[in-house]
Amino acid sequence: MDDAQLQPGQLLARGVARYLRRNDFACLEEFVPRRGLRTDVYALGPGGEIWVVECKSSRADYLSDQKWQGYLEFCDRFFWAVDGDFPQDLLPAETGLIIADSYDAEILRMGPETKLAPARRKKLTLKFARDGARRLQGYRDPGVPALTGPEA
Amino acid sequence: MDDAQLQPGQLLARGVARYLRRNDFACLEEFVPRRGLRTDVYALGPGGEIWVVECKSSRADYLSDQKWQGYLEFCDRFFWAVDGDFPQDLLPAETGLIIADSYDAEILRMGPETKLAPARRKKLTLKFARDGARRLQGYRDPGVPALTGPEA
Repeated sequence: MDDAQLQPGQLLARGVARYLRRNDFACLEEFVPRRGLRTDVYALGPGGEIWVVECKSSRADYLSDQKWQGYLEFCDRFFWAVDGDFPQDLLPAETGLIIADSYDAEILRMGPETKLAPARRKKLTLKFARDGARRLQGYRDPGVPALTGPEA
Repeated sequence: MDDAQLQPGQLLARGVARYLRRNDFACLEEFVPRRGLRTDVYALGPGGEIWVVECKSSRADYLSDQKWQGYLEFCDRFFWAVDGDFPQDLLPAETGLIIADSYDAEILRMGPETKLAPARRKKLTLKFARDGARRLQGYRDPGVPALTGPEA
């Protein structure tokens, strides 16, 4: 996808996903761990660890997010990703912090770990696996949307 | 991908994956559950059940496959997928059978169930999740191959 088609938050998400990939995490963008909760970057590590990264392109974008505490129960670690101009003092100290642009990213502060319960991790991993494979099939087989409708 | 670019076995795999999708399975093609073992269609059901489907386009294609019994320990059910002209008597009776073309498929005989041990299922589901998400990132972000090399 061309840069011009992506929103500022999506450009940050792209850089975050590239960085995480190099650090052996596999990412889905806009994964929905529970109805009504759409995450910017949902990342699955080599040992099954789950990170959520919410990308904020501006102060207004951050201040309008009323949902972020709801993400905490769907990951082991939570991070904000912002660009170099973002007023970092706004962000809660007890959350992770990633500095990103559309090309790359870097962890500035590790998010504290709160381990998911095994049953929830299992359920989320299965949903991640199935959602990702279905999206991929939509790219690989152009006949799929006509047969089964667009992927949610 | 155009039909003309796909091998006969890949065209069957496409039909199988479409059929399985409508039956609530998410599929990866050419998933490698263990080094040296590449499956045609690896499918993950809503309850985490794992099916393997090997697609055979001809008698010769089937007879040259020395590996299929190795797949059994990486799935709950195993199926062959063949087209309507394939000599079905060749296939072992104790395996599942799917009739397919490049557009659709249908299960003729259910593969018997041999449940995976929980630890192996967990490991395979995680690998499926991470491999699928990484392949998807390659489609979504054209910058990825240059940064990290093509996906295996």
